[in-house]
Amino acid sequence: MSAATAATAPTQTVNVAETPFAYREVGPAAGVPLVLLHHVTAALDEWDPAVVDGLAAERRVILVDLRGVGRSGGTTPDTFEAMAADTVAFLDALGLDTVDLLGYSLGGIVAQVVAQQHPDRVRRLILAGTAPAGAPGPAATGATLQGAIQKATEQGKHPKHFLFFEPSRSSQDAADAFLGRLDERTTDDRDAAVSNETIGAQLAALTAWEQNTSPDGLAAVRQPVLVVNGDNDTMWPTETGTLRLAQLLPDAKLAIYPDAGHGGIFQYHEVFVQQALDFLRN
Amino acid sequence: MSAATAATAPTQTVNVAETPFAYREVGPAAGVPLVLLHHVTAALDEWDPAVVDGLAAERRVILVDLRGVGRSGGTTPDTFEAMAADTVAFLDALGLDTVDLLGYSLGGIVAQVVAQQHPDRVRRLILAGTAPAGAPGPAATGATLQGAIQKATEQGKHPKHFLFFEPSRSSQDAADAFLGRLDERTTDDRDAAVSNETIGAQLAALTAWEQNTSPDGLAAVRQPVLVVNGDNDTMWPTETGTLRLAQLLPDAKLAIYPDAGHGGIFQYHEVFVQQALDFLRN
Repeated sequence: MSAATAATAPTQTVNVAETPFAYREVGPAAGVPLVLLHHVTAALDEWDPAVVDGLAAERRVILVDLRGVGRSGGTTPDTFEAMAADTVAFLDALGLDTVDLLGYSLGGIVAQVVAQQHPDRVRRLILAGTAPAGAPGPAATGATLQGAIQKATEQGKHPKHFLFFEPSRSSQDAADAFLGRLDERTTDDRDAAVSNETIGAQLAALTAWEQNTSPDGLAAVRQPVLVVNGDNDTMWPTETGTLRLAQLLPDAKLAIYPDAGHGGIFQYHEVFVQQALDFLRN
Repeated sequence: MSAATAATAPTQTVNVAETPFAYREVGPAAGVPLVLLHHVTAALDEWDPAVVDGLAAERRVILVDLRGVGRSGGTTPDTFEAMAADTVAFLDALGLDTVDLLGYSLGGIVAQVVAQQHPDRVRRLILAGTAPAGAPGPAATGATLQGAIQKATEQGKHPKHFLFFEPSRSSQDAADAFLGRLDERTTDDRDAAVSNETIGAQLAALTAWEQNTSPDGLAAVRQPVLVVNGDNDTMWPTETGTLRLAQLLPDAKLAIYPDAGHGGIFQYHEVFVQQALDFLRN
């Protein structure tokens, strides 16, 4: 067991075909690693320390910035095929053969493509707050982000209060707690903010995911998948996103959290960690 | 706060139009009561003490045997309208105006009918492991019970291992723990077993619920409802039962537990109790 936590793990770098990729490790050094793939606009510091440290109680957890994100070099590609290829190249660079993947939102799409195009590299998948190809939501993400930023400015709140949580008192309290946890890391090597160029490429990939991509390949995913979200994801609606994903995948388990949105795994971090560890263990 | 627990609360009796109804109370004496309505074949001792005591930490919890069930007198009716009328008559007999209802399985159908036909008596609803009118499952319940009893006899297990839980190790372990909790009550006044006549009437009502009843009235239910189940209910399938119920109800919150079946609220009793209390509190 590494003594590092989400708040203290140093940011490391590995060369992926001559481009440095930034990553962090938490948890025991042995066992099938669990690689975390993050959402649009996010770098390493946007991972909830409660989720990372909770999972790292049993698992070797690896957080990564893909190409062009945070402190990683290169230019973020505008297709999920390229992001999936970068993910596999990162595994190669670390000498990791087979891993478990936890993909959140945009990272959940990357994970879906890795599972379809590189099935031998994935043992189990957790897909959180995400959607199959063709589902409504991803193509409107840029507009949704703009709307939340405007609302946040007007109300003196963080955009994630609106993007990830419900209006109820208990969900907004959970938002405050979540945002507080994101500030736990106070070391000098906080990650770099994501550039507008990177966000633009991610939004282009999301538009193509909704408008020009088929979910048919999910029927061939043989791995067990835990599909999870809040019951009222207003970014990528739960019913057409998460529930549909669980229908399309041959071996899916489903977890839905009440009075919760796109950030359901952060609002219910204790429950999610327990369910995720159970799923990965069994 | 009453000192009684699910294991120690005395079985009381109240006359409902001259028929004695058996019930138990746990938890504080004040506040909107939470009335628990149970599943086909069940009497008071089939309620999970972990769920009852967990809810009673904050709520006045009342468990009831409807007409003809357990130690209650009379003959169980074969329609849900009559069971709903009995529920309201029981509330009248206890002098309870407005209550919250937790209906599980068959009890969840009774709760749906109470909410539609006596909306002024219900503040909030929790519908667990249940299904809207017309959904597949309820009409086959008799055959499903028979199949589980046969399998249980062959394998030396309890039928609920198959009816309420998944085949996975962790779900079967949860089944053992659940069945152990049902034996916690060791007082002399354990409830009477349910008669075959009662089960026959309940099965007839379930058949009519699936074959001759419309779910359209759910659109008029104004109360907030927490709809909850395991992700793979093999008795009354989650997708056409629980997920459909959440779609049909205008103000539904949804909780789904992974690697769990019809008995999801018992397998995940701690999570369920927390979510139920949050829902009733907010």
